[in-house]
Amino acid sequence: MAVYTEVTDEALAAFLEDYDIGRMVAFRGIAEGVENSNYSLRTTSGDFILTLYERRVDPAELPWFLGLIEHLARRGIVCPLPVHGCDGRALRHLCGRHAAITTFLPGVWPRRVRPEHCGPLGAALAALHVAGRDYAPTRRNALGPDGWRPLLERSRARADEVQAGLASELDGALAGILAEWPVGLPVGHIHADLFPDNVFFLDGRLSGLIDFYFAATDILTYDVAVCLNAWCFEADFSFNVTKARALLRAYDATRALGDAERAALPVLCRGAAIRFLLTRLYDWLNTPPGALVTRKDPLEYLRRLRFHLAARDEHAYGI
Amino acid sequence: MAVYTEVTDEALAAFLEDYDIGRMVAFRGIAEGVENSNYSLRTTSGDFILTLYERRVDPAELPWFLGLIEHLARRGIVCPLPVHGCDGRALRHLCGRHAAITTFLPGVWPRRVRPEHCGPLGAALAALHVAGRDYAPTRRNALGPDGWRPLLERSRARADEVQAGLASELDGALAGILAEWPVGLPVGHIHADLFPDNVFFLDGRLSGLIDFYFAATDILTYDVAVCLNAWCFEADFSFNVTKARALLRAYDATRALGDAERAALPVLCRGAAIRFLLTRLYDWLNTPPGALVTRKDPLEYLRRLRFHLAARDEHAYGI
Repeated sequence: MAVYTEVTDEALAAFLEDYDIGRMVAFRGIAEGVENSNYSLRTTSGDFILTLYERRVDPAELPWFLGLIEHLARRGIVCPLPVHGCDGRALRHLCGRHAAITTFLPGVWPRRVRPEHCGPLGAALAALHVAGRDYAPTRRNALGPDGWRPLLERSRARADEVQAGLASELDGALAGILAEWPVGLPVGHIHADLFPDNVFFLDGRLSGLIDFYFAATDILTYDVAVCLNAWCFEADFSFNVTKARALLRAYDATRALGDAERAALPVLCRGAAIRFLLTRLYDWLNTPPGALVTRKDPLEYLRRLRFHLAARDEHAYGI
Repeated sequence: MAVYTEVTDEALAAFLEDYDIGRMVAFRGIAEGVENSNYSLRTTSGDFILTLYERRVDPAELPWFLGLIEHLARRGIVCPLPVHGCDGRALRHLCGRHAAITTFLPGVWPRRVRPEHCGPLGAALAALHVAGRDYAPTRRNALGPDGWRPLLERSRARADEVQAGLASELDGALAGILAEWPVGLPVGHIHADLFPDNVFFLDGRLSGLIDFYFAATDILTYDVAVCLNAWCFEADFSFNVTKARALLRAYDATRALGDAERAALPVLCRGAAIRFLLTRLYDWLNTPPGALVTRKDPLEYLRRLRFHLAARDEHAYGI
């Protein structure tokens, strides 16, 4: 879930006076997302989401995120749009947190991914990459390859509590990934966390993308690799090549993948798998009892990593 | 939070076909309530709440709860109304759970209680008691006085982990409460859990009551005692007699409290305090690490209990 900060009704009423969106009608915490506190907010003028940014988000980076979202929206990417206060500012303060109101996005995220979700996903991801091209400011990907070794070090001493031999298996895999990590591939702004719960569908169509707070400037095809990991494995960790093919074809139709990008898919997929494995491992070992988040099993990404380690080339992904 | 059961989009779409409320537009888990899974559901015809009943609710009792809610609503109590399927049934099945859709109730629950909330609360509680009079079926209060000694036994062995001497302090208090428990007071259907998060306000008025799944047939004034505990203590556990007086006066104006009911307030308040103390104590000792609920501190109710033990008579509550 994600309500870390309780907002009093008086504080909210005072906060809304800085906007031109009417008076409060309903206000409920949303049990989704893990990084920030999110509330569903209805006012006399419509529906909105109120986000309070919690400790994992660096306040100095919030203008970059909100600027990217507005930039993408102006270029036709459907995403929750920051609502500006009467003074023009979208980023404000509430209950000791940075806070923003965004528009409400209709749609439902797919709890069970079907192949017909993956084409629209690939097309939307490519459109996001194209739309981001002329957003000039950049953001280093703190959870990119440079961050993986330090992440592993933070969990090394206790990694084998999760599975015997895990630390040494990850050492080997990570050394290989970093040695083969591609250079010279096209770079741009990536979502970096486009899991099914961040993609809404409505009446069989993709209706929007949410949660850009891991976005960064990095290899575009790495974003594709994140999606292959997040969308194309079945519950038994078998790889569904039909889903992967649908994703890659639709992506390629909007933004053509170069030969070097295709060839790099296996190592990019390994990198994406180890990135989520390492953050989940850290969270698994460091989530206190009684915390309000569900711990996600890091070993699910070990299974994915092993699939990618066995992939000889890009044909393993259906192309 | 409260989303224990994940509902797939296909299952939800199929479920909605049994209703005449249009197609799905949005669907989000709600981070409130602790007993059941609640989702905010928007369809092409409006807003609803979808509830999946989890393990603590006995399915055999659901018709009693839904019948009470409909009865109260017909008598003017504003509460979320069960929506009936095309076949007339309100109680259905979804994802292996009993499930019901109810109407959406505008309003916001008060995160910080002010004296001006307490009058409307008292009036609404009395109206609920009056409206329930002619709902014939009854439900035994499983968390009433008969249940407190067994509840204490389930935590006795580890109670002193929470505070040294707690088990013996509770033994003494409980013996006194049960010895003095009043007989012959007016009985009816009580909400039994009317905490601030179950009472919505909008534009300064009480806009409705929710979450009737602890309702039972018991001493009406016990419900008043639950509210005195839940609404009239400050964060430092001082008792705010202004709030109590507002609550009691407004209650009394709609349903007059008899002399015996007034005289019983101290012991009823002790009973209500120990009831929440005991369930919190059990949950505190038995919530597994990583669970999706916030553990609530049982000692907050020990502080309340001690206040009530010191109350000489009903004048301690402002009357």
